[in-house]
Amino acid sequence: MDYVARFETLIGEMKLDGRYRTFIELERLAGEFPTALRREPDGSARRVTVWCSNDYLGMGQNAEVLAAMHGAIDQFGAGTGGTRNISGTNRSHVALETELADLHGKEAALIFTSGWISNLAALGTLGRVLPNCAIFSDALNHNSMIEGIRRSGAERFIFRHNDAAHLDELMSAVDPDRPKIVAFESVYSMDGDVAPIAAICDVADKHGAITYLDEVHAVGLYGPRGGGIAEREGLSHRLTVIEGTLAKAFGVMGGYVAGSALLIDVIRSCADSFIFTTSICPHLAAGAAAAIRHLKDSGEERALQQAAVDKLIVMLRAADMPVPDTQSHIVPLIIGDAHLCKATSDLLLASHDIYVQPINYPTVARGQERLRLTPTPFHTEAHMKALVDALVDARARLGWNNRLLAA
Amino acid sequence: MDYVARFETLIGEMKLDGRYRTFIELERLAGEFPTALRREPDGSARRVTVWCSNDYLGMGQNAEVLAAMHGAIDQFGAGTGGTRNISGTNRSHVALETELADLHGKEAALIFTSGWISNLAALGTLGRVLPNCAIFSDALNHNSMIEGIRRSGAERFIFRHNDAAHLDELMSAVDPDRPKIVAFESVYSMDGDVAPIAAICDVADKHGAITYLDEVHAVGLYGPRGGGIAEREGLSHRLTVIEGTLAKAFGVMGGYVAGSALLIDVIRSCADSFIFTTSICPHLAAGAAAAIRHLKDSGEERALQQAAVDKLIVMLRAADMPVPDTQSHIVPLIIGDAHLCKATSDLLLASHDIYVQPINYPTVARGQERLRLTPTPFHTEAHMKALVDALVDARARLGWNNRLLAA
Ligand SMILES: Cc1ncc(COP(=O)(O)O)c(C=O)c1O
Ligand SMILES: Cc1ncc(COP(=O)(O)O)c(C=O)c1O
Repeated sequence: MDYVARFETLIGEMKLDGRYRTFIELERLAGEFPTALRREPDGSARRVTVWCSNDYLGMGQNAEVLAAMHGAIDQFGAGTGGTRNISGTNRSHVALETELADLHGKEAALIFTSGWISNLAALGTLGRVLPNCAIFSDALNHNSMIEGIRRSGAERFIFRHNDAAHLDELMSAVDPDRPKIVAFESVYSMDGDVAPIAAICDVADKHGAITYLDEVHAVGLYGPRGGGIAEREGLSHRLTVIEGTLAKAFGVMGGYVAGSALLIDVIRSCADSFIFTTSICPHLAAGAAAAIRHLKDSGEERALQQAAVDKLIVMLRAADMPVPDTQSHIVPLIIGDAHLCKATSDLLLASHDIYVQPINYPTVARGQERLRLTPTPFHTEAHMKALVDALVDARARLGWNNRLLAA
Repeated sequence: MDYVARFETLIGEMKLDGRYRTFIELERLAGEFPTALRREPDGSARRVTVWCSNDYLGMGQNAEVLAAMHGAIDQFGAGTGGTRNISGTNRSHVALETELADLHGKEAALIFTSGWISNLAALGTLGRVLPNCAIFSDALNHNSMIEGIRRSGAERFIFRHNDAAHLDELMSAVDPDRPKIVAFESVYSMDGDVAPIAAICDVADKHGAITYLDEVHAVGLYGPRGGGIAEREGLSHRLTVIEGTLAKAFGVMGGYVAGSALLIDVIRSCADSFIFTTSICPHLAAGAAAAIRHLKDSGEERALQQAAVDKLIVMLRAADMPVPDTQSHIVPLIIGDAHLCKATSDLLLASHDIYVQPINYPTVARGQERLRLTPTPFHTEAHMKALVDALVDARARLGWNNRLLAA
């Protein structure tokens, strides 16, 4: 077996396809978000405006968050040196889990080193410990949920995106006695559309299913205390499990699930991907807890973000950029072609010092390639004007047209 | 389906079995390792000596590491707000990857949020992109490697622990043209024994296989620059992939793989568990890089640790505790019974303020339940004397005997 040849073929195919990714090297600048330094391979640096960050509220530079992290490093040191079970449970983990359970109105919560792992662990475990389980999964569910479902070994049924009627149809065809899980997201990250949570819960209840909601792109951002779309709609109690991340609106890293004490105990006790890994650093838990507490009390960041979203959409439309009505904080500009999408991004960076990563397959389906814009409370009108001007320039030079964009 | 009943049964079975774990809540104290505060559920606290940490060298409180973390938080903020591809690559990630490639004498390295994920991603990807791959896996490989192999979908062959002859036998029976990977560890964490790396590489070479070595319990600890057992034995160049963690001897959190630039590019480009998750915080990368740099230059921590291991073994043997000759820094005391193991640990904590977590199934096989002691440079002779006295007391009160221990 010629491994080198095989690997070269693989990488070569990705390059031909426009799927090969080169990472842009940044230096985030605490206090200057959304400005960052962009490092060239030769070491030189330019200031760029970042328009594609999931630090949705800029909490990654929030003074309370950073102070909590500094304080916890001084107090506890760096890592924990152990799995949760073997000397790796710190007071700050327990405090964060209490904070999260409260955020979602649940009895308990469990934290992980990432949202990705929380989905793998929770779905992977629930689908495995329930004999002959059937998992009903939204067609656009995130990779981490798909991996969790795959790991569980449970039978998977895919319902059409946000389609409660199709879910009902699929569930009706499955033995009523089988254990069932309905897994979906609240805000879908690439289109910014929102699930019909109540309708999906109605169907799930009718068939006696566990409901599992990924609120990764909603926690901190919606609801009076930042509990997500379920909180905003008064539906938290209808979800068996709410999963979230500490890495986006909360600005740090890590993930979690919240639910009944018994269910959380099952995941805690049975999930290999939770048991056999070093626990998250105490100061990350402390920083995330500070962010959560701040956003429970303060609606200011959410209001400013929503105002920025509204303003950007108005400005884009005034420049004849066909942006869809968004139901959330995510503003997608569909380009619909991998190479053109990359060329636009390259041009924005090279000629305008604006950084928006092109989103290509496999993150979105082929033909759905896009720029995904995420206005934050820190994006000013001047930032927006510069972005719109740059897009107008790119359109002229690269020859997009509105038909392409609206595809 | 009665979910509550099912979950209660599951937890009930674990409790009956002695497999149910309750986490000990600690407050690590930077600057006072291995002392920590142990929190009771009522909020009261006692100082305990931790004897089961994988912060093997106490780097979790190293001044250079903490300073690097503080500095990077001030500079970059908390999280990255993005996956590596979407605004989440920071200068400190690139610097750490360069540091790690150098540590292992490889062209490139790739970092992950944990060692667990690095094994899942790397083995899961390699076994999947090589058509009809056969993976040969040591019988005692860590859960994360097993999960990676499972995820790859490749056919798995398990060779007897550290048995190169058995590996050869299994490999000889497989079509010579099939792609092959041999996956094993250098230091096995529960017994502290060391793989015959050269012999295993000889067999792998004979059959044209990729060699994949998990050095999680060896990086930082062995070799003149802390490159692990492979470095100590001058064998790094014979390993296709070296995998490690930033969470044990390096004191922080995160994991990595190192190898050829092409192979690392394949993992970077194809591993879902790498692509679809927020990148590790810049300050964690900065802290880990500081730990690695420190341990490349300083052999002092390694020497002090090894001296502590030797001294503890002498003292345990003087008290007639039958500890095996260890080939590493891990000192296992086999108790051989889940309940007795737990009772010993409880007694040490309650009567002696000594914390050693019992290691029970599934972390070790049934009948292999143990206390796993990890002396560090910060465990003094006084700590050791207290431990030995406490073990003598536990033996007398609980009625272990040496036959049991030597099982
Ligand atoms: C819907 C969804 N779930 C889970 C995750 C994973 O979260 P994390 O970045 O914390 O691993 C992501 C993206 O990263 C996501 O978009
Ligand atoms: C052999 C081995 N590999 C990998 C891991 C996972 O590393 P991490 O704790 O960084 O997830 C562990 C333990 O945690 C381990 O013992």
